[in-house]
Amino acid sequence: MNEVNKEIQSKPALDKENAKSIDETFNPDTSDLESLSFDRSNPEWEKHLEELIEKRKVDKIKLFVNELYSADIGYFIDQLDSEDGVFVFHLLDHETQGEVFLEVRDSVRERILETLTPENLIAIIKEQESDISTDILAHINPDNISHILSHLPLIERRRITELLSYAENTAGALMAKEFVEVLEKDTVKKAIQTIRAISRYTDDVYMVYIVDEEGIYKGHIDLRKLILAKPQTKLSHIMETELLPIPHDMDQEEVANFFTRYDFISAPVVDSRGVLVGRITVDDILDVIQQEASEDILLMGGVSSDETLGTPIHLASSRRIIWLSVNLITAFIASFVVNLFSETIGKVVILAALMPIVAGMGGNAATQTMALVIRNIALGELTFINGWKAIRRELIIGIVNGLSLGILAGGAIYLFTNSKPVLGLVMGMAIFTNMIVAATFGAVVPIFLKKFNIDPAIASAIFVTTFTDVLGFMTFLGLATIFISFLT
Amino acid sequence: MNEVNKEIQSKPALDKENAKSIDETFNPDTSDLESLSFDRSNPEWEKHLEELIEKRKVDKIKLFVNELYSADIGYFIDQLDSEDGVFVFHLLDHETQGEVFLEVRDSVRERILETLTPENLIAIIKEQESDISTDILAHINPDNISHILSHLPLIERRRITELLSYAENTAGALMAKEFVEVLEKDTVKKAIQTIRAISRYTDDVYMVYIVDEEGIYKGHIDLRKLILAKPQTKLSHIMETELLPIPHDMDQEEVANFFTRYDFISAPVVDSRGVLVGRITVDDILDVIQQEASEDILLMGGVSSDETLGTPIHLASSRRIIWLSVNLITAFIASFVVNLFSETIGKVVILAALMPIVAGMGGNAATQTMALVIRNIALGELTFINGWKAIRRELIIGIVNGLSLGILAGGAIYLFTNSKPVLGLVMGMAIFTNMIVAATFGAVVPIFLKKFNIDPAIASAIFVTTFTDVLGFMTFLGLATIFISFLT
Repeated sequence: MNEVNKEIQSKPALDKENAKSIDETFNPDTSDLESLSFDRSNPEWEKHLEELIEKRKVDKIKLFVNELYSADIGYFIDQLDSEDGVFVFHLLDHETQGEVFLEVRDSVRERILETLTPENLIAIIKEQESDISTDILAHINPDNISHILSHLPLIERRRITELLSYAENTAGALMAKEFVEVLEKDTVKKAIQTIRAISRYTDDVYMVYIVDEEGIYKGHIDLRKLILAKPQTKLSHIMETELLPIPHDMDQEEVANFFTRYDFISAPVVDSRGVLVGRITVDDILDVIQQEASEDILLMGGVSSDETLGTPIHLASSRRIIWLSVNLITAFIASFVVNLFSETIGKVVILAALMPIVAGMGGNAATQTMALVIRNIALGELTFINGWKAIRRELIIGIVNGLSLGILAGGAIYLFTNSKPVLGLVMGMAIFTNMIVAATFGAVVPIFLKKFNIDPAIASAIFVTTFTDVLGFMTFLGLATIFISFLT
Repeated sequence: MNEVNKEIQSKPALDKENAKSIDETFNPDTSDLESLSFDRSNPEWEKHLEELIEKRKVDKIKLFVNELYSADIGYFIDQLDSEDGVFVFHLLDHETQGEVFLEVRDSVRERILETLTPENLIAIIKEQESDISTDILAHINPDNISHILSHLPLIERRRITELLSYAENTAGALMAKEFVEVLEKDTVKKAIQTIRAISRYTDDVYMVYIVDEEGIYKGHIDLRKLILAKPQTKLSHIMETELLPIPHDMDQEEVANFFTRYDFISAPVVDSRGVLVGRITVDDILDVIQQEASEDILLMGGVSSDETLGTPIHLASSRRIIWLSVNLITAFIASFVVNLFSETIGKVVILAALMPIVAGMGGNAATQTMALVIRNIALGELTFINGWKAIRRELIIGIVNGLSLGILAGGAIYLFTNSKPVLGLVMGMAIFTNMIVAATFGAVVPIFLKKFNIDPAIASAIFVTTFTDVLGFMTFLGLATIFISFLT
């Protein structure tokens, strides 16, 4: 760890004037760019950087990227061809390299990784906080990890080794080991000294955590309170106790719901004995929430939860085909059901035109229920315990809406087609039945899937809509078969 | 503003020992509850509170709810019948009342509002930060707002009036007016004095903002750096400038993407001249992100973006019926298209069984594309500028997957049914065509809707899947009609 480089200051203060004057001699546009708030959707920025890269103007590129956040550097590298991207990456300082490494898309990261020697990786990891180091190591060939770890200072090696031991997607895997830990009997002055010491390793200090002699978490003090207190004040006098520590094995989605619900900025993580083992800061939670929301939306849409616009086409395509093939099979099953009634359809051909309506209304009603239920499961509002209330609610809505739309659809057929009156009745009854079942199943299936630790978003769509299709066809064509003498 | 009450300490430190001993005499279970981490899904908590309420044990209820976060008090009040809920609400202190008022569900909030006099409301609002006051006023009859405002101290009235003037869902509407503003020439000591002064009004101080004499935002210092600096240090020596101020009219979804991308904890908001007008803290951003994700998931599922499990059934039902009715109309349109081919279906009845497969594969392919595109629009990764890349990508995937699944489905029909070989060809060609169009439309429609400021999640599902249904039926039955002589 390069202590001088990391001490206190998170980024070197920008010498804006200097950057501006150099750039202006090169490109008259730059002065405008300089005064603009950075904006990815402004193509001028990209053009400017690409020009600099083409001419391999190393110093100017360094000045330019110094202006940018790691997320934006990663975004730009993603836009470049891989040779240029690797070139820019190697111009960054080690600390930024670590952050950018995690920002770029998978294929770019793999190209960068090919150009990094173990010594590069060691240098990069030395500059990171423990949680970022762990994230970087997750992308590295497991055979090389022990070599890299062996070249780190003992304290960092221990921290990373511990973090690597926690299960994926838990609080333990999300937390960092760089936190401020002091005793109840300590004073404000001691707490500030501890902050100074930890500042070698992290900029993210928002709270001081109080522990007892065994390391058990007791309470916290936020920096605002610390700054306003006198140096000799005992921490026990100003500490607060209402902040709940997070168990290390809590699922990250639940951790995110804790942060959202209780407005945490930073929270302590404890082991099963209550010993403080790490801290989670809210910036990591923002990523978790966006990621979990993306996963749910994509899975409900039938796309792999990790697909992005940057996923190579052959990968995206082959993964989507798997999902579509499952749907093809279920569609064939529904089709098989329809074919059982081919005699009825042969006699009353308009049934063929109307049957997708019944299936579709069931599918839509089920999708409405599933969207609400899946989202509320994700937010932690809906659990197996209070699930029956949601199921009952959806059942009632299913009955009301099934009745309304059954009458509406049946009436429309009676009024606007030349078919026999009974057809409207058959239609209405089929829609009524299908929508009730759809609403109930749309609530029951995700709640039970969650209970059995299956992601409710992934499997619900297949199970439920296949079911509403089959049931819709079956009730509609079945009723038509029963009433066939009134329909011909 | 009750300064004594708010000064420094956010919540009174809990007298746990005392609370425990009182409760134990009442209910032997309490000692277990006390030692538990609070957990909503544990019915013991609810039972215990309900018992206390039934017996109207005011002091014990107060002790009990003092243990809880506002979010959890709101959750419990939601579970109670409305009379008990209002009873508990009126036992809370004014500060907590304001927070809980925003946490409870709409119908409960309306009941509470009926029991609040203007004087109650004034007392509650006096205890809140400006952004929370504004949120509370948004629920109050506009006729009463000026009366309430006129009873607030001048400084608070000004703050709230300004916040009310910003457009909904912008940075201005999201920010709070309680922030620490100091000059470049000021010292660390002066910054700490300013923090002390603002602590009467807020606990959320994570940064000190530096402005020039005109109030233009210049930079920031986080509290960690401030705490480690000497009191006489000039702020200009330790301030950082890389934090981008947020324009007051930026859409809240974009603000949320800024926080996520750049790991902000707190960010300054500026007006069009660059003058610092407020600050946004990350806890509000967590709510924005969850809310935006909920909206997208619900709208994609055909549910109102604000429906929750607590929305009264008659409201939920009637809103869903509107959506289902639109779908019913589009289903009738598709049905009308099918009916154009009734002669063909009459001759080859198996077509009726197979046509939903073609429509369904198109719908599923379109849904895959839409899920990916809508999510990336929400994350700010996909804009109108780079939209053509996404459209091209989806088109290629559509061609590859259309070809694969066309061959698969056509081959299955050829191999596993007794129909004429040409039927497999018709099926394959129809699926191929429909999936290409589905993928393209699934990308184009949301991108254009976003361009015209229509929420891409709401309208895409209707437009696109109706289109893929109609097109699927039309290509499949159209091709079958052309090749009818080979099919009979």
